Amino acid sequence: MKGLFITIEGPDGAGKSTQIEQLKEHFKNQGKDIVITREPGGTEISEKIRDIILDNANTAMADTTEALLYAASRAQHVHQKIIPALKKGKVVICDRFVHSSLVYQGIGRGLGVEEVKAINNFAIEGIKPDVTLFFDISPETALKRKTKNNEGDRLENEKVDFHKRVYEGYKRLIEKYPEEFTIIDANGTIEEIHKEVIKAIG
Amino acid sequence: MKGLFITIEGPDGAGKSTQIEQLKEHFKNQGKDIVITREPGGTEISEKIRDIILDNANTAMADTTEALLYAASRAQHVHQKIIPALKKGKVVICDRFVHSSLVYQGIGRGLGVEEVKAINNFAIEGIKPDVTLFFDISPETALKRKTKNNEGDRLENEKVDFHKRVYEGYKRLIEKYPEEFTIIDANGTIEEIHKEVIKAIG
Repeated sequence: MKGLFITIEGPDGAGKSTQIEQLKEHFKNQGKDIVITREPGGTEISEKIRDIILDNANTAMADTTEALLYAASRAQHVHQKIIPALKKGKVVICDRFVHSSLVYQGIGRGLGVEEVKAINNFAIEGIKPDVTLFFDISPETALKRKTKNNEGDRLENEKVDFHKRVYEGYKRLIEKYPEEFTIIDANGTIEEIHKEVIKAIG
Repeated sequence: MKGLFITIEGPDGAGKSTQIEQLKEHFKNQGKDIVITREPGGTEISEKIRDIILDNANTAMADTTEALLYAASRAQHVHQKIIPALKKGKVVICDRFVHSSLVYQGIGRGLGVEEVKAINNFAIEGIKPDVTLFFDISPETALKRKTKNNEGDRLENEKVDFHKRVYEGYKRLIEKYPEEFTIIDANGTIEEIHKEVIKAIG
């Protein structure tokens, strides 16, 4: 593959979207062709699959079914959008990729990291990110940024718990596969974080 | 699991449906509770997934996506129908199961037997058939039985080729995992085959 494949991981509220926009400008200024994507990635089939996952009527859905549907949606996204762009030498930046499934389904749903990794390896046709940036920010700070509201009521506490579990999930994953991640300190200002990102992608 | 899980494999035209009916009567006469099923197995979620697979509009579907969708549909069928029935001690007879995916997607689509097996192992939550019956019949005979027409025109020849590939796929699979199959000679009369089946399930 001639292109460059960058994936962005981290909790909601870590500033991923803002940094992706900054990165887009950076590559544009270099005259590079750039594709910003996130699953389901605008492919019709992936979106139909996503509709099944998100349909509230499907309360009987098994965790295994859900994980396989995410992998199926990803397979189509990879096949129809990511691989063709990389073959053309483009820079592809994907907001969340396999690592998110390992955290949310593998650890979050208790299906197992290795197990969820196996079905995703099948889905991605050998495509691995050249760089994966993990936006490291404490769950409390991420939640504050996201909601701008920290009243500490029951609902808020539940949200903090959820964010903590996601954060701990990422930390476990990074411990397991340290070579797959570049850690970005996401506590600084937009400019500070952008500088770190640029350094990380070389 | 207290129940008995039987899967039936083999080419179309091998007489599987007829034998499943005979087997149903056999177990009923023994006073057993019996569930006859085939994918998508009547679960609403599996049927929605199957609709995506079979939708002719989805011509852009990647082979990997298709295989993962079959596995997702199976995961739901296993979780919602097969495991609960086995837990209640029922006899479950499933017309085609994982082995069909290994033949049609693993060998037929060239995705690899081991690879398709891995995603299906994820789907079946550790449930393995107690017995898998392979209905062994030559592709020519199976096609004759099915179509009662053997004129040998171009379309017929294509069909023979397809049936041959499926048959050879099963043969390769049986060579790879001989311990997983009980082979039934499916060339005889209904009564002869039924006797073999009864012998095979002990």
